[in-house]
Amino acid sequence: MDTWRLKKEGFELSEAARDGNRFLCANGYMGLRGTVEEADKREFPAITLANVYDRYRDRWREPVNAPSCLFVRLSMNGRALRLAEKQPKGHIAEIDYRHGIYRRDTDFGPVRLRSERFVSMAQHHLLADRLRLDIAEDGELEILTGISTDIWDINGPHLFGAAFTKGEALGCLAVTGEKGISVAAAQCIQKDFDAEEAFRQKDDCVIRVLRRRVKRGETLTLSVFAAVCTSLDGEAPDRTAESISIEAKRQGFDACLTAHKAVWEDIWARSEVTVEGDDAAAQALHASQYHLNCIAPRHAHALSIPARGLSGQTYKGAIFWDSEMFFFPMFVYTQPEIARSLLRYRIETLGGALAKAKEYGYRGAYYAWESQEGGAEGCTNFNVVDVFTHRPVRTYFRDKQIHISGDIAYALRKYYEITGDRSLLEEGGARVILECARFYLSRANCRLDAESVEYADVIGPDEYHERVSNNAFTNQIARYCMLSALKLEEIFRDTPDVLRAIRDELKYENDWELLKKASAAIREPVKRDGVTEQFDGYFGLEDCSVETVRGRLADPREYWGGDHGVAGTTQVIKQADVIAMLALFPELYEDGEVAANWAYYEPRTEHGSSLSACMYALTACRIGRLNEAWELFMRTASIDILGGGKEWAGEIYIGGTHPASNGGAWMIAALGFAGLTMRNGIPEVHPNLPAQLTHLRFPITSAGKRYMVDVSREGGRIEPL
Amino acid sequence: MDTWRLKKEGFELSEAARDGNRFLCANGYMGLRGTVEEADKREFPAITLANVYDRYRDRWREPVNAPSCLFVRLSMNGRALRLAEKQPKGHIAEIDYRHGIYRRDTDFGPVRLRSERFVSMAQHHLLADRLRLDIAEDGELEILTGISTDIWDINGPHLFGAAFTKGEALGCLAVTGEKGISVAAAQCIQKDFDAEEAFRQKDDCVIRVLRRRVKRGETLTLSVFAAVCTSLDGEAPDRTAESISIEAKRQGFDACLTAHKAVWEDIWARSEVTVEGDDAAAQALHASQYHLNCIAPRHAHALSIPARGLSGQTYKGAIFWDSEMFFFPMFVYTQPEIARSLLRYRIETLGGALAKAKEYGYRGAYYAWESQEGGAEGCTNFNVVDVFTHRPVRTYFRDKQIHISGDIAYALRKYYEITGDRSLLEEGGARVILECARFYLSRANCRLDAESVEYADVIGPDEYHERVSNNAFTNQIARYCMLSALKLEEIFRDTPDVLRAIRDELKYENDWELLKKASAAIREPVKRDGVTEQFDGYFGLEDCSVETVRGRLADPREYWGGDHGVAGTTQVIKQADVIAMLALFPELYEDGEVAANWAYYEPRTEHGSSLSACMYALTACRIGRLNEAWELFMRTASIDILGGGKEWAGEIYIGGTHPASNGGAWMIAALGFAGLTMRNGIPEVHPNLPAQLTHLRFPITSAGKRYMVDVSREGGRIEPL
Repeated sequence: MDTWRLKKEGFELSEAARDGNRFLCANGYMGLRGTVEEADKREFPAITLANVYDRYRDRWREPVNAPSCLFVRLSMNGRALRLAEKQPKGHIAEIDYRHGIYRRDTDFGPVRLRSERFVSMAQHHLLADRLRLDIAEDGELEILTGISTDIWDINGPHLFGAAFTKGEALGCLAVTGEKGISVAAAQCIQKDFDAEEAFRQKDDCVIRVLRRRVKRGETLTLSVFAAVCTSLDGEAPDRTAESISIEAKRQGFDACLTAHKAVWEDIWARSEVTVEGDDAAAQALHASQYHLNCIAPRHAHALSIPARGLSGQTYKGAIFWDSEMFFFPMFVYTQPEIARSLLRYRIETLGGALAKAKEYGYRGAYYAWESQEGGAEGCTNFNVVDVFTHRPVRTYFRDKQIHISGDIAYALRKYYEITGDRSLLEEGGARVILECARFYLSRANCRLDAESVEYADVIGPDEYHERVSNNAFTNQIARYCMLSALKLEEIFRDTPDVLRAIRDELKYENDWELLKKASAAIREPVKRDGVTEQFDGYFGLEDCSVETVRGRLADPREYWGGDHGVAGTTQVIKQADVIAMLALFPELYEDGEVAANWAYYEPRTEHGSSLSACMYALTACRIGRLNEAWELFMRTASIDILGGGKEWAGEIYIGGTHPASNGGAWMIAALGFAGLTMRNGIPEVHPNLPAQLTHLRFPITSAGKRYMVDVSREGGRIEPL
Repeated sequence: MDTWRLKKEGFELSEAARDGNRFLCANGYMGLRGTVEEADKREFPAITLANVYDRYRDRWREPVNAPSCLFVRLSMNGRALRLAEKQPKGHIAEIDYRHGIYRRDTDFGPVRLRSERFVSMAQHHLLADRLRLDIAEDGELEILTGISTDIWDINGPHLFGAAFTKGEALGCLAVTGEKGISVAAAQCIQKDFDAEEAFRQKDDCVIRVLRRRVKRGETLTLSVFAAVCTSLDGEAPDRTAESISIEAKRQGFDACLTAHKAVWEDIWARSEVTVEGDDAAAQALHASQYHLNCIAPRHAHALSIPARGLSGQTYKGAIFWDSEMFFFPMFVYTQPEIARSLLRYRIETLGGALAKAKEYGYRGAYYAWESQEGGAEGCTNFNVVDVFTHRPVRTYFRDKQIHISGDIAYALRKYYEITGDRSLLEEGGARVILECARFYLSRANCRLDAESVEYADVIGPDEYHERVSNNAFTNQIARYCMLSALKLEEIFRDTPDVLRAIRDELKYENDWELLKKASAAIREPVKRDGVTEQFDGYFGLEDCSVETVRGRLADPREYWGGDHGVAGTTQVIKQADVIAMLALFPELYEDGEVAANWAYYEPRTEHGSSLSACMYALTACRIGRLNEAWELFMRTASIDILGGGKEWAGEIYIGGTHPASNGGAWMIAALGFAGLTMRNGIPEVHPNLPAQLTHLRFPITSAGKRYMVDVSREGGRIEPL
């Protein structure tokens, strides 16, 4: 078994959307869905751009898809050769995880088409595809390629006023409807055969048409070099795109591919988790690390990763807490510059968080639940559509999910502890922690007649229970945020003036005193037989199984959560909540308490979010439930091999890759199986190797030093590299 | 037009339930629904007992219906004479509002049946019916009467182990399932004709069978005397019931009726509102005052009135804020001993309110939203059934409707101000006010970083908007409750030791200081162009018409409120909320402000509760919108003439009389049209007489003195009686 590849034989139109995710190529700047060159809109082809958002009319804002500039359509004797139209004699698609290369091999009968393509890691504006055509019959071959703005969008159109040019490269320049961002694409080709060449131009495309009489036995090679730029990258994106595509053609496909592969080799050298004993696990880890690495913002210094990565426009292209909780750990231990970019995104969008707090009548930083450009909240008040009335349902994710600010402060502190690098705190990180802590001061609920601080009317990680009070996770993350703010005094003890200047600028003196008082007064959760109550009154809810709750659905597409949902009035939860708290703060809880909570909550958890299994697996490792941990690990790591998950919300496509699971797979392997942890700035391992594995190795970076973690049946060690 | 009667010709089975309410007879101890003597369960016949509750299995607790002991069934030559079976030649039913007498006149053909019956105001255990049979054909007449426990219940059965006896009176003794309360009934008859008499006894009934060959032209008279007692009234309720029925028979129907009528004459002398200029209005006022007076607890010193009076088991027989807000005003001004009983019910059920506060983690008295015996909360967490999924829906009426405690404190203070009688405060009333104020201290939401006191996560009078913050009405009633607690110092200034003893007993010293601070710090509502925002964020909700909202219903039976309801996310409200606040605290708001709020809120109000129109009418009077006030008055006062309103909630019958509207009619006439108000302990009038009336007169009592209020086109005056 080649653990570095995923191959799939055959083609079904109904699987095309899923394959678009499985076979994704991306480089952090953009994602090219894994559809075939000739795909039409039914297959959801897209080149999704990072950090370019647009809102069409009153629909929700979403990422912009670039003009289609890598399509190729073949026809022979006037008959289109298209997978979606007829079963080919044979079709194999493959993604090469090691080097981020998509390959296909399709035998259409008259023509066998083999291609390989990539989204360049070396030149982030570049996409390239090399097609090899083996001719099996004489005939008239036609090849269409070019640039089109007639593209698939969930909420589009987003590209307007497209102007096309034709020189050595074809070019396209359009602007987005909402903010007038210019989006440019260019494309040129290289071929090893003669052909009659013609051009067609319409309002929405410019097409290059190649025609040639071909003979059985001939082999033709065509390379397509496309480039995408936007006005967010600099001036004249159309000229930049044009020159990049021409330069790529000049260098040639092989040279571009070599440069691209070199970057991937470096990525793997820094991050590869090697396992022995189970090839499926090895493949799943490669898949997970590939999918997370390929969407990392390597070209930008202050950018984060959307919840569905760059696999499309789903989830509004928004940044969720997934970034800090699930993407951040792998990056901070393997490629801290990327972890830094994720957090710098938060630092640079502090303004949006301050504005959101103000909107709700609070002080400090209330980070968006679904953060888009500038930190603007992308989440609406109506996130669910009722399946019976087709009316939007008021949900409280936007208003009440207050743990996000604490999650960000948590990651900022972890960044410092793992990297030993204080500069991020100096360059805005400390300010973010202080403003988040201030938000928790301001959001705190007190009583006239009692001393304790509470957080009423919130939503914890388990979103099925809306508007609860004293969610254990939320109270803990709020406390930790406050303590992290106070901890800055220690972190900056050698240069107290730096911190003092920040505090002065933020007019923080009163709040500093309040932090001391409040952090000590936050309500502790109720515990019963060692089990932490998820929120006030949770134990009083109907106690029934996930299957009982599922059995009450009147419609399979019904939303489970909220007061109307089947789970909302029971103890059945969507995802890890108390367990997430135990996983994030292992030092605060004894093993016995973790075990008691695990035994209580796991059977009550639907795992209806890809954020759930990882937290259960991490805690399972700690308490020796290694078979369960293994099962959860495989479920987590295989998710983007299997495809699927929740793909549709009513009429809306919500499928995509699962970066949180991708990150979760690394977390389970590294933090769970190897038991990697930091103690006083030094990494340690406390292995919990499941029976299925004989060996586990992975590199890490901590405080600027590189190490290799090596865990086997004999134990674990960390050696400097 | 006889404004003292409501007559109805004809009979439709589909109208029988509604007629049961229209033609109700009651005396505060029990209510006899206005169904015909031979009615079966399809017609919802019942004798509903005040203050006797029972819970059957896991269904909700409801009032107990007494054994059926006033039924009479006729047959002629073996053919049943029953209205529900065939159209009679003629049928007229009538309720005599002046004396609380139900009469019927039914021509079955072979027999014409005329009866008159009442539930005695002079002997509260007694029901009596006199039937006159005019024979039109020769034949074999059979008359069945007796006692049966096979009765209509919404959530029953409630009566178990019935034992029947047969002496001069028939007797029945059964016990309720939940608490084993004994419920006894007895019945005897008096007749002016000979008949063959036989008895039948089964498990659930004892029947007296009279048989006689009758001749055309004969007239027979039969009187039935029934009595109902329970073990809550004293020992041996079966013997008490028996002796009451026998004693009534001994006195005879006319003597019993005379005693009954005398009480009604006294009631009217003390409370009748006389209007001239509009007979429909006069009749509607008689109807309203009849319905409210007939359910007043004259036999008990600490009893209140359920939301649907004694017209059945609907609304769980529970006591709502209707008591203090809508029943109390007429009684306190006309029959203060009844107002006192309503409030003593609250004093005696303080324990239930303390327990409810504790259940939710608060101190003080949190009165039940639906109060049953002992103040127990009858409201469940699931008050609505979803019409699409048939699943119960989580509602927050029980948890969040915190204004009820303040409503009670408000009435206690008004009782003192209007009657000048401090004894009720001394006998527990002050304690209730203090404990209610303490609840508001405890329930107050504060922030660490701000001084103001807020009430987050509440439901105001407009129940369509659940879980809102700083509902203007709620904040105002909480503040008034606190100020009323502090006001006790002034009320008890001549005997400070009395108050001090109460405060010491309640360990109130710290709270007293807190009250001063908190009452001054409660958040004022947002105002925009003189319009008070109903709660935080209300103005930001979708602003659309009631009709727009109605048009969005996917099912006409859908619940409008909550996050899922069509109204919940709009500015459309169920009932007066800000307007109720303006009506209750007229001295705090200028006319212009009232006018601005009226103009804003009225078009946005569904008036989906019978509590709504009255508040709009009162405020309309004040600002000179007299045509609108008149329309609202007529709608309010006519409700139990027209019948109807919301009668079904899915499969559940929720119809009944509307005591809140009954009280509201008096309030509009007295407080609105006459403008009755108290100033420094003296009643005053400020007339707003609508064009439809030429004269308005009604007696009141204040500070032990009786007055006649007289309002005409020339103005208003109050004269001692």
